[in-house]
Amino acid sequence: MGDALKYATRERARFQRELFDFLRIPSVSAKSEHDGDTRRAATWLAENLSRSGLDVEVLETPKHPVVLGEWRGAGTDAPTVLIYGHYDVQPAEPLDEWTSPPFDPEVRDGKIFARGSADDKGQIFMHVKALEAALADGGTLPVNIVVLAEGEEEIGSPSLGPFVEKHKRRLEADVVVISDSAMFEQGLPSLLFSLRGLAYFELKARAAKTDMHSGAYGGVIPNPATALARIIASFHDPKGRIAIKGFYDDVLEWDAKTRAQIASLPFDEDDFRRGVGATALTGEAGWSVLERLWIRPTCEVNGFLAGYTGEGAKTVLPAKAMAKVSFRLVPDQKPENVRILLEAHLAEVTPPGIDIEVLEHHGGLPWKAEVGGPLFEAAATALEEAFGKRPVLAGEGGSIPIVVEFERILGAPALLVGFALPGANMHAPDEWFPVENFEKGISALVRLYRKLGKK
Amino acid sequence: MGDALKYATRERARFQRELFDFLRIPSVSAKSEHDGDTRRAATWLAENLSRSGLDVEVLETPKHPVVLGEWRGAGTDAPTVLIYGHYDVQPAEPLDEWTSPPFDPEVRDGKIFARGSADDKGQIFMHVKALEAALADGGTLPVNIVVLAEGEEEIGSPSLGPFVEKHKRRLEADVVVISDSAMFEQGLPSLLFSLRGLAYFELKARAAKTDMHSGAYGGVIPNPATALARIIASFHDPKGRIAIKGFYDDVLEWDAKTRAQIASLPFDEDDFRRGVGATALTGEAGWSVLERLWIRPTCEVNGFLAGYTGEGAKTVLPAKAMAKVSFRLVPDQKPENVRILLEAHLAEVTPPGIDIEVLEHHGGLPWKAEVGGPLFEAAATALEEAFGKRPVLAGEGGSIPIVVEFERILGAPALLVGFALPGANMHAPDEWFPVENFEKGISALVRLYRKLGKK
Repeated sequence: MGDALKYATRERARFQRELFDFLRIPSVSAKSEHDGDTRRAATWLAENLSRSGLDVEVLETPKHPVVLGEWRGAGTDAPTVLIYGHYDVQPAEPLDEWTSPPFDPEVRDGKIFARGSADDKGQIFMHVKALEAALADGGTLPVNIVVLAEGEEEIGSPSLGPFVEKHKRRLEADVVVISDSAMFEQGLPSLLFSLRGLAYFELKARAAKTDMHSGAYGGVIPNPATALARIIASFHDPKGRIAIKGFYDDVLEWDAKTRAQIASLPFDEDDFRRGVGATALTGEAGWSVLERLWIRPTCEVNGFLAGYTGEGAKTVLPAKAMAKVSFRLVPDQKPENVRILLEAHLAEVTPPGIDIEVLEHHGGLPWKAEVGGPLFEAAATALEEAFGKRPVLAGEGGSIPIVVEFERILGAPALLVGFALPGANMHAPDEWFPVENFEKGISALVRLYRKLGKK
Repeated sequence: MGDALKYATRERARFQRELFDFLRIPSVSAKSEHDGDTRRAATWLAENLSRSGLDVEVLETPKHPVVLGEWRGAGTDAPTVLIYGHYDVQPAEPLDEWTSPPFDPEVRDGKIFARGSADDKGQIFMHVKALEAALADGGTLPVNIVVLAEGEEEIGSPSLGPFVEKHKRRLEADVVVISDSAMFEQGLPSLLFSLRGLAYFELKARAAKTDMHSGAYGGVIPNPATALARIIASFHDPKGRIAIKGFYDDVLEWDAKTRAQIASLPFDEDDFRRGVGATALTGEAGWSVLERLWIRPTCEVNGFLAGYTGEGAKTVLPAKAMAKVSFRLVPDQKPENVRILLEAHLAEVTPPGIDIEVLEHHGGLPWKAEVGGPLFEAAATALEEAFGKRPVLAGEGGSIPIVVEFERILGAPALLVGFALPGANMHAPDEWFPVENFEKGISALVRLYRKLGKK
């Protein structure tokens, strides 16, 4: 193992250069104009992974391809580790809020700034480089490796479930390792005990066939922007609880031990607030910030568009309005139930004259880990050796819907080991990833693969 | 006069061709990218007006120029008619909802489709052509004429008040004639007894310094889109009344005669609703549709923008949200008072953690005519001769703020004679103006100038 770690240290400048090439490809899976770039990112990753010593294929799906790499050198009796990640990224808008261009990576203050640096190109690429280091110069591993990188994570992984079902035998594994999340804080690694799920909707309100003059029709023809605002206002009660009937019916009440463990984490609510420049915190009364982020559900407006939004004033009464509204879910909520509850709520609160249409974008189930056991122990030790500190257990407010799918289809537990940091601006301008974590993380992963080989 | 009317009939095809040239200039005053076009429209109009036989100047203002034409042939003892209109137009967005391009005029079903055809290029141009007909072939008029066309009406006429003040002596008139409104219905001309005023605001809500991941921050950092939606929801009570404290304090209670006269008009609320494809009407309980449009104030959302509004889903917690919100005012409300009441309301309802900024766009006072007397009689007769029907008295839901300014500065009453039709899509896609009204209206205006000469 010493050689592999030395190799990684020696090659770190090249590893970073290669990562920059990967980050330069604007593989925005949500935008059809970037379909070519998304495919180019897959091909680039496949070639790079192949140079690490794996057998690699780029497999088609109905939309963006899957990159599949295999190294079976440990033999059929050895355990198999399935490494999952994604090479697609979120849209980069609003572009004018980036300090440096999103697809032109730049290091400032020890951070790599680029769309995808943290989510998830930087992290999947750490596995690719850890494998290169482990297998370089005739090196070997005690586990078989399967790397699966998809290009549809940011649009809800529509093809991945069917893909895993179809290739179930080939993907058989003893553990699924995923690096698509954050450490608790700089220098303090963590292992995830939960993920929130997601139900994402687009609400389209319409009142008339065309935009109108607000003087000639105002006060008489329903205003869909006002109506949609009133509908959104009905989603929360004054205490920050979601006011959709039945919404909390399936929400798990976590045990006292989990809540005590969350309370014991070194976390300063004011620092957190100041970190994003907010002047106050909000949310459901009666729960701490970390609880509201990890083990309580939310309802957020992700976008709203109606009428004239350009320079100056236009006295228009809009014919239609659109809002993107998503819910973060916790065990045991299900996106399909949330849709039913939402539609019942809309039927009750939508005013006369407003036609409301509900489109469902991607969703995903929440996840809860089986904490403890040899997998967690192997990961904890690997992280402690690389970062010099025993990892804490942490929740994650975001969603990786495929985690539940992997566990269900392959029957293997997932191990979520992330290396980004809080405030990494995943899904926002100025996304960044620490150079230090990129380098220490590669060493942690080499160690982890080794430890997972010990039965 | 017979010669003038014959001339107008003979030249009508050319008049329409010239109007089309005028409509092709995208003089969108609100957008700085169109500043050159707006100036071009002024120059075009000045040249055309000069060919009608007037002495014309293009006078600078801080933004878009004023076109001023004069014909003083009636002598110093004769009355002077000031004709006011505007050559600028509303933005044409959303472009994809136009059947034919907004700046490429086209006649379909007897209607001229183009941005500005009704508001107000088509109507000010009718005056220009009526003057050409009246003054052609050595023709003369019993009144002196001043034509004043501005290029800032759609952005609230910021320069016009100071301009009129400055040129007060030169603009001295006995009546101000304005054609920037609609007839009550096809074949039924009307004279206006009221206009609503306007107070237009942009509300900018901010919660954090940058957009965030809705999983990593949702449920804890305030969502400015949700907050702005809740604020907008607070603007109306469940009965459709504006719920801003003190808002109705200055609202005039109109006399029974006016309400009875409104009730007597041939108006079908269902036809009106179906005309714009709406399935229900809304607004303040206890008032008819025409009353809600003409003599009651409103609060409308004209635009709303927050977060990600493109294709697909983006799980972003927006840092900011913006809404354009305007109020139509009735006598004796004042925009400056509405701003004070709005700000007091915002201070009360804005949730913690949301910084709200209020920008004021243009506003204007409501107007109420002195109905009856020789001016109204002259106009009524001119319209009856041209359209074959005695005009009705009508209100107007829209705003022409300069009307009150003209009356205040020049001490001359305004006469509002409009030729567009309800449903003309002023300020909306597919704006149109009837060819028939363009032609009959020119004849009505020739007659009107003659009758205004009789003291």
